[in-house]
Amino acid sequence: MDWVYALDIFGTLVFAISGILTAIDNDFDLVGSAIIGLVTAVGGGTLRDILLGATPVGWLHDSNYIFTVILALILSYTLKNSILKLRKSMFLFDTIGIGLFTILGVKKGLLYDLPTSSIIMMGVVSAVFGGVIRDVLTNVVPLIFRKEIYATACIIGASVFLLLNHYTHHDTWSMIVSMLVVMIIRYLAVIRNWSLYISK
Amino acid sequence: MDWVYALDIFGTLVFAISGILTAIDNDFDLVGSAIIGLVTAVGGGTLRDILLGATPVGWLHDSNYIFTVILALILSYTLKNSILKLRKSMFLFDTIGIGLFTILGVKKGLLYDLPTSSIIMMGVVSAVFGGVIRDVLTNVVPLIFRKEIYATACIIGASVFLLLNHYTHHDTWSMIVSMLVVMIIRYLAVIRNWSLYISK
Amino acid sequence: MDWVYALDIFGTLVFAISGILTAIDNDFDLVGSAIIGLVTAVGGGTLRDILLGATPVGWLHDSNYIFTVILALILSYTLKNSILKLRKSMFLFDTIGIGLFTILGVKKGLLYDLPTSSIIMMGVVSAVFGGVIRDVLTNVVPLIFRKEIYATACIIGASVFLLLNHYTHHDTWSMIVSMLVVMIIRYLAVIRNWSLYISK
Repeated sequence: MDWVYALDIFGTLVFAISGILTAIDNDFDLVGSAIIGLVTAVGGGTLRDILLGATPVGWLHDSNYIFTVILALILSYTLKNSILKLRKSMFLFDTIGIGLFTILGVKKGLLYDLPTSSIIMMGVVSAVFGGVIRDVLTNVVPLIFRKEIYATACIIGASVFLLLNHYTHHDTWSMIVSMLVVMIIRYLAVIRNWSLYISK
Repeated sequence: MDWVYALDIFGTLVFAISGILTAIDNDFDLVGSAIIGLVTAVGGGTLRDILLGATPVGWLHDSNYIFTVILALILSYTLKNSILKLRKSMFLFDTIGIGLFTILGVKKGLLYDLPTSSIIMMGVVSAVFGGVIRDVLTNVVPLIFRKEIYATACIIGASVFLLLNHYTHHDTWSMIVSMLVVMIIRYLAVIRNWSLYISK
Repeated sequence: MDWVYALDIFGTLVFAISGILTAIDNDFDLVGSAIIGLVTAVGGGTLRDILLGATPVGWLHDSNYIFTVILALILSYTLKNSILKLRKSMFLFDTIGIGLFTILGVKKGLLYDLPTSSIIMMGVVSAVFGGVIRDVLTNVVPLIFRKEIYATACIIGASVFLLLNHYTHHDTWSMIVSMLVVMIIRYLAVIRNWSLYISK
């Protein structure tokens, strides 16, 4: 499943860049930016692994995650203006990361003997909490709780994966289809400004 | 010990409602509110389980906790005005949750070979940190550090439980008495506006 | 290695005092101050142990850490004015704690079969995240991300320790030299106002 690993590193890179850009906006220094980049990229998977007891947590076993964050740091500082122009593409890349991290989280949850609702939650935590920790560390109320139906897309995609996986037993296609579900919902939500508010 | 499980679910419901009401006050969307509700309700026990290494953490094994949070979400949105009128009763319910979570935390701590001070700390963490995480995620300084002798009530109740349990070996009565100790101290503290400030 | 344990308790005391003084500045009550003191002192090591899966986390096994925090609480409230006059010495003490916690973190990381970059990260996490959690709980953007090359000192010191340990196999001297490296870099950085900003 090399394409999964490649996408995982790609998602890590995109999440790290998004964290580092936030850090730069907050006047963090180089190392502070690197820490925020790392936390944004691996924070969700880290919390999932800690909740499951899958320790030492995943990224500690593979130095490529740390090196990807260092690459993100170099790219962010050298190409900052170009990246900012690419914000729209960044949003698309970010959506790919969210889709993949959701499904990878569900797959990790499946290794444990847990109820379905908890396995779906592992997908949501993986995709969402990196951004939540980034927002907590930069002292803002996490965006995700207010502005996007980001977590909803993850819940739906995770459920689709579990259904497809259960009925088709075709892992690769289940992953691809459910990742696309997450990505399309999130894409449409942002484009059409969907939200799940209930008026007070 | 069915009454313990029933009270645990009841405490989860009350804590989740308190989290969801805070989330609504902060303009969170439905899923954001659900996440804050879940974190408020299970955050303390989660941190306790992570510190102890009791993983996968407790609520992941039992889907009733997640469904209780969903119930809390429905109640909070449909009955919001009635619940706000019930704030005083909510405070009482909340106190029941704190008392129970403290003692359940101590009992879990007792399963490990740890010094007494650490076991008491597991009771405090269980009862207190759900609210702390809620406050961190909604970007306010945790109330508990300033306004109530909440944690003190937990420390005293946890100590009473350990003493009673050690000398009487009567688990149920030790639980009931020490829960009442937590609840009465917290009730009196709020009613009489006790605090543990030392003037600067 | 009694001197290591003594320094560890000393570092815990100094970190706890720094946390408690911050808590007092924020109008926290006694128990709130104690919790912030504990979190500041043991938070970094706790996160390291959680990431590694070394649970129950270290300080839970040894009540001296909690008692040291209680001692810090008594000292902070009774000797507050003297301590504030000692701020310069406090900074020096704090630097000793950072140096030691970095190396202890690396040594704990070495017990697991992890890549070098992850082991260095365990040193940084141990030394740095107590202060980060303190800042998150008191609702400020963590100072370390902006003002000091604190984490950089930890990264360099951790690398020096790994090199010395690998080539000399002399544990005590490797520890002493690399702790001094952390302390000297941090001392010079603060005195000379070094930073790692790259202008925007």
